[in-house]
Amino acid sequence: MIYFDNGATTYPKPQSVINAVNNAMRLYAANPGRSGHSMSIKAAEKVFECRQNAAKLFNSKTPENVIFTNNCTMALNTVIKGVLNNGDHAVISSLEHNAVVRPLEFLKNKGVDYSVADFVFGDDEATIDNFRKAIRDNTRLVICTHASNVFGVTLPVERIAALCRIYGILFCTDAAQTAGVIDYDLQNSSIDFLCTAGHKSLYGPMGTGLLIINSDNIPESLIQGGTGSQSANRAQPELLPDKFESGTPNLSGICGLNEGIKFVIKRTPQKLLKDEIYLAARLYDNLSRINGVILYTQRPDVQRFVPVISFNIEGMDSEETAQILNNRYNIATRAGLHCAPLAHNFFNTENTGTVRAVMSAFTTVQNVDYFSACVRKISALKKY
Amino acid sequence: MIYFDNGATTYPKPQSVINAVNNAMRLYAANPGRSGHSMSIKAAEKVFECRQNAAKLFNSKTPENVIFTNNCTMALNTVIKGVLNNGDHAVISSLEHNAVVRPLEFLKNKGVDYSVADFVFGDDEATIDNFRKAIRDNTRLVICTHASNVFGVTLPVERIAALCRIYGILFCTDAAQTAGVIDYDLQNSSIDFLCTAGHKSLYGPMGTGLLIINSDNIPESLIQGGTGSQSANRAQPELLPDKFESGTPNLSGICGLNEGIKFVIKRTPQKLLKDEIYLAARLYDNLSRINGVILYTQRPDVQRFVPVISFNIEGMDSEETAQILNNRYNIATRAGLHCAPLAHNFFNTENTGTVRAVMSAFTTVQNVDYFSACVRKISALKKY
Repeated sequence: MIYFDNGATTYPKPQSVINAVNNAMRLYAANPGRSGHSMSIKAAEKVFECRQNAAKLFNSKTPENVIFTNNCTMALNTVIKGVLNNGDHAVISSLEHNAVVRPLEFLKNKGVDYSVADFVFGDDEATIDNFRKAIRDNTRLVICTHASNVFGVTLPVERIAALCRIYGILFCTDAAQTAGVIDYDLQNSSIDFLCTAGHKSLYGPMGTGLLIINSDNIPESLIQGGTGSQSANRAQPELLPDKFESGTPNLSGICGLNEGIKFVIKRTPQKLLKDEIYLAARLYDNLSRINGVILYTQRPDVQRFVPVISFNIEGMDSEETAQILNNRYNIATRAGLHCAPLAHNFFNTENTGTVRAVMSAFTTVQNVDYFSACVRKISALKKY
Repeated sequence: MIYFDNGATTYPKPQSVINAVNNAMRLYAANPGRSGHSMSIKAAEKVFECRQNAAKLFNSKTPENVIFTNNCTMALNTVIKGVLNNGDHAVISSLEHNAVVRPLEFLKNKGVDYSVADFVFGDDEATIDNFRKAIRDNTRLVICTHASNVFGVTLPVERIAALCRIYGILFCTDAAQTAGVIDYDLQNSSIDFLCTAGHKSLYGPMGTGLLIINSDNIPESLIQGGTGSQSANRAQPELLPDKFESGTPNLSGICGLNEGIKFVIKRTPQKLLKDEIYLAARLYDNLSRINGVILYTQRPDVQRFVPVISFNIEGMDSEETAQILNNRYNIATRAGLHCAPLAHNFFNTENTGTVRAVMSAFTTVQNVDYFSACVRKISALKKY
């Protein structure tokens, strides 16, 4: 399959990731941090190694501030529900995913309100100003995706975070589409909480996510339970990462993620972004030359984009285009709303959805050109 | 390693489980239920197959009532927080794990209270009566482990569930130590919620758990986010299983769990329990003949136990015994409190903890006899 659904999860994974998962299943599949025997200790060491590598990639103060979750959604829920209480207000961007919108909608019943700050493409000042205007006296948390999962445009999160720091408001970024292709330097950043998936541009298996706490303001835990620490204490331990990691972790997933992060560290996010934006721009150029293809953003570049292209063929539903790409040409894309209706409202694609193609480290020029040629054929069938 | 830490996670896993994980990583590692392309559909089919097999094993009404979680702790948190609100009261047994105690302790700050009903070994009537006495006018939920993770004794959960049904109280069982060795027939049961780990006696990978909803009373969701369904709706969908499965699932874990459940269905829980209790009883008998070994329960049988043996060597800390078993004899056990301080209070082992040995389908008579011989040697060193 010619795979362009890397925004949902990257495929293929590096061989080192697959090997690590397999080894974890076969050689040291004991419960890490629960028992004192050699296999359990080996498992715990592997988990800690992944924590260290994640801390290195994001320049987190300590590995203990790296929390494993089962996906980005769980990381975002942990921050949102661990910070916001009755009477609090939050601000989010107009490009947020349902992983941010739905928990906030849920909290409306618990006395939490939120506002949406409009993103303005190409005008960071205007975007930041919209956040400033949305802030109220009771605003406690700002959440902003670092890049739209539908359109690939990036938001000035570091500057919004700095604004929040001035106002004494906590700032959380959804880095699901940026971790691994954009460099983070958390120790020199005003980002308080970074949430991301492990299975996208970090190349880990599905079932992995990260919450990195870059603040002394520690949220309440979302889940409590056995941590293997302070077992006689009925209260959830406060120490990190235990506070947020109750129950048995996804050991093989974390072992795979460890290798995925090493893969990214070795290639560097900068180099990965440069290569993938080259491919995204090539796809953009190819598509822009096809009659009847609608593109929604400017040509992608490393300053303002991650390697995501959304498009449609005029008069054709995005789902239909994706179906033909799959059935006739063996190409995997994703169509529809991509769990981000707000972003579609912004780009006026809420009725059609879009076809989305996302690059990864394994995408080639041949893949891109084949993809473009197939879109040309489908478009020609519509006889523009 | 001679592995007896099956109460923490079973090891080894069946080869079919390892193969399924590997295949999921290599062949169809696309995001299930998110996109319409062939690989995503194949992934979604595998997830559904696991749901069907779990429904079959537990005789759940529909596969949609089978919810995937990342561990039993998350399943228990979902029920506890999704059912209990300010002013509500819960009842739990005196053998509960911290996965039950700590969320309830956390909810004390939110106006939820709970009581502990004492387990009485060998007297189900007395145990049930203790639950009856603990019920108040505002009791909304009873949670009871089906078996102690420390001592292996089982509790009369079906009868307690039936009692709750009469009182109009919801009943949840923690089946972490029983799913796979005790047969469930949910369609003919008063259990409303069954929570279990996927990585213990169901032989799936770590990072998997199940919540089976056997009630029309659907809890609030713990986590909200993208579900790939009703994407334009800012509210969390109410349909099952989507309501409880926001974000990307642990695909390779679920594919492994599917094979684990098939392994159990093929062998049957009854047969697995019979074989493992035979080994547990043999270990019990062996240990009971060693001077200075303290055992805490009666001899295990299939009526009243799951295959868990807790013991100590007189005058020796449980951690020390486990360390010697590991360092000198390459035997994996777990020592300490096993995240269940309540159970230790009950058996007066809160200061020493216990050494725990748990059987699995892969434990052999040779393993048991070797283990016993090693304990004999350690005990002899203490010169009783």
